[in-house]
Amino acid sequence: MDFEPYIVRVNQYLRTCLPSQGSLTEAMHYSVLSGGKRFRSILTYAVANSFQTDLNLADSSACAVELIHAYSLIHDDLPAMDDDDMRHNQPTCHKRFGEAHAILTGDGLQTLAFSVLANDNNLSTQVRIALLQALTHAAFEMAEGQSIDLSVVSKAVDVDVLKNMHEKKTGALISCCVKLGVLICACDANDSQILGRFAKDIGLAYQIQDDVLDVLAPENVLGKKQNSDADKDKPTYPALIGMDKAKKTYQQLYERASAQIGQLSVNAYELHQLTQRLQSRQF
Amino acid sequence: MDFEPYIVRVNQYLRTCLPSQGSLTEAMHYSVLSGGKRFRSILTYAVANSFQTDLNLADSSACAVELIHAYSLIHDDLPAMDDDDMRHNQPTCHKRFGEAHAILTGDGLQTLAFSVLANDNNLSTQVRIALLQALTHAAFEMAEGQSIDLSVVSKAVDVDVLKNMHEKKTGALISCCVKLGVLICACDANDSQILGRFAKDIGLAYQIQDDVLDVLAPENVLGKKQNSDADKDKPTYPALIGMDKAKKTYQQLYERASAQIGQLSVNAYELHQLTQRLQSRQF
Repeated sequence: MDFEPYIVRVNQYLRTCLPSQGSLTEAMHYSVLSGGKRFRSILTYAVANSFQTDLNLADSSACAVELIHAYSLIHDDLPAMDDDDMRHNQPTCHKRFGEAHAILTGDGLQTLAFSVLANDNNLSTQVRIALLQALTHAAFEMAEGQSIDLSVVSKAVDVDVLKNMHEKKTGALISCCVKLGVLICACDANDSQILGRFAKDIGLAYQIQDDVLDVLAPENVLGKKQNSDADKDKPTYPALIGMDKAKKTYQQLYERASAQIGQLSVNAYELHQLTQRLQSRQF
Repeated sequence: MDFEPYIVRVNQYLRTCLPSQGSLTEAMHYSVLSGGKRFRSILTYAVANSFQTDLNLADSSACAVELIHAYSLIHDDLPAMDDDDMRHNQPTCHKRFGEAHAILTGDGLQTLAFSVLANDNNLSTQVRIALLQALTHAAFEMAEGQSIDLSVVSKAVDVDVLKNMHEKKTGALISCCVKLGVLICACDANDSQILGRFAKDIGLAYQIQDDVLDVLAPENVLGKKQNSDADKDKPTYPALIGMDKAKKTYQQLYERASAQIGQLSVNAYELHQLTQRLQSRQF
């Protein structure tokens, strides 16, 4: 299964959505078009495609989740936050453009995400509003999750706190990617519930795996600093429950996610493949 | 004319919109409910009221513009931006809660503004989408305006650059407050155009007046540091065209704005009064 066409597709759409002039243009292009796995938008496309929905209807959602993700990375990388210098194998936005400009670039990208959805005339206003409700909800949870993340640095927390933080910080937006697909396809209640559980599992799995890869993957593969969680004294799954158990936890979550989508009323081959691809990712 | 009922009203609505639990709650309440003139929301209410529109339909818009304004102040006050310590006679958000938390609080408030509009079930989805299109457009311009503002520090700029910056940084959101009122009332094209010109004039007037008051008003009245523009070597209207001409410019803009709304198909008494109140404001 080749997900590259989705990556090409969302990158094309992102280029049309990003401003072509104005004071924030260069930094926005630099940060949004510098790579990234595009896993979130692939997820939205894959859900839409599983239900044989016209992918044109999914473009704005795919683009919006990538814009929200890009804005969150720019702000998370700031010196006052995670203070990271590298992202996608290039200097972070604030290293390249300065802190003030990076803050505003993130601010503008968040705005743009909602603007792209509000202005998609291919979708009815009802669907657009449903998408905006879902995406604003997820973006709010994400900001909360990041603030919890900062508040637990150097603190002893239990797995429940960590799980809650991961579900908000990373899981909410990943769940939302699936939810947007569901809303575009107007899936029935049963499929919608199955996909909701699937999304929740892969959202948490993805972040636990990130914790693991932060320790195990080399920097040139990660595209950012290795062991950054430990350096910042952040609680992680490997630190809390041990590396082996952390690996097992995310693998089980991916497997449960895969089993769930087997119950969909449509062929879930593509979502299975995507889940497998995620499970075996190295960065 | 007493605008206090609108202030009470928007504050009540803001309290219901702000989260009551979660990691960003305290900082959001601190920053949003600490005062402020509420001029932007009054403007939306006053337009709605002029067209005898049920004010319940304007609550979410009034609230959304105040949330966008509040988020922009929190981010503008950051050390990397304007580095201001006081706002509304209390320490700025980052002084009270730290920089990281202030960035996330601003981020969350921006999200919340769009969420409030998307979730207002009193309005049709068509109207909600129109409001969201207008507000995302204005919020994007505002971020651009702020980035221009930072880029012209210590630089010689001409009045056109300053005007463009002011129109984006302050004017766009003020214009949007009127626009949201127009969309809620579904004004006819003629009234809509008149109000568009009115909004543009008071938007620019308001910012020129801010430049003037920054020099002339004492700190306890401003609620923030006096002469902060000059201290930061920012270009301003008084610096560029002289204090007398700057005063005259904003007064003429307010007068033209007032004359324009005389041509509305409805009684513009309240908007006249509001314009007069703005013109004579001391902070």
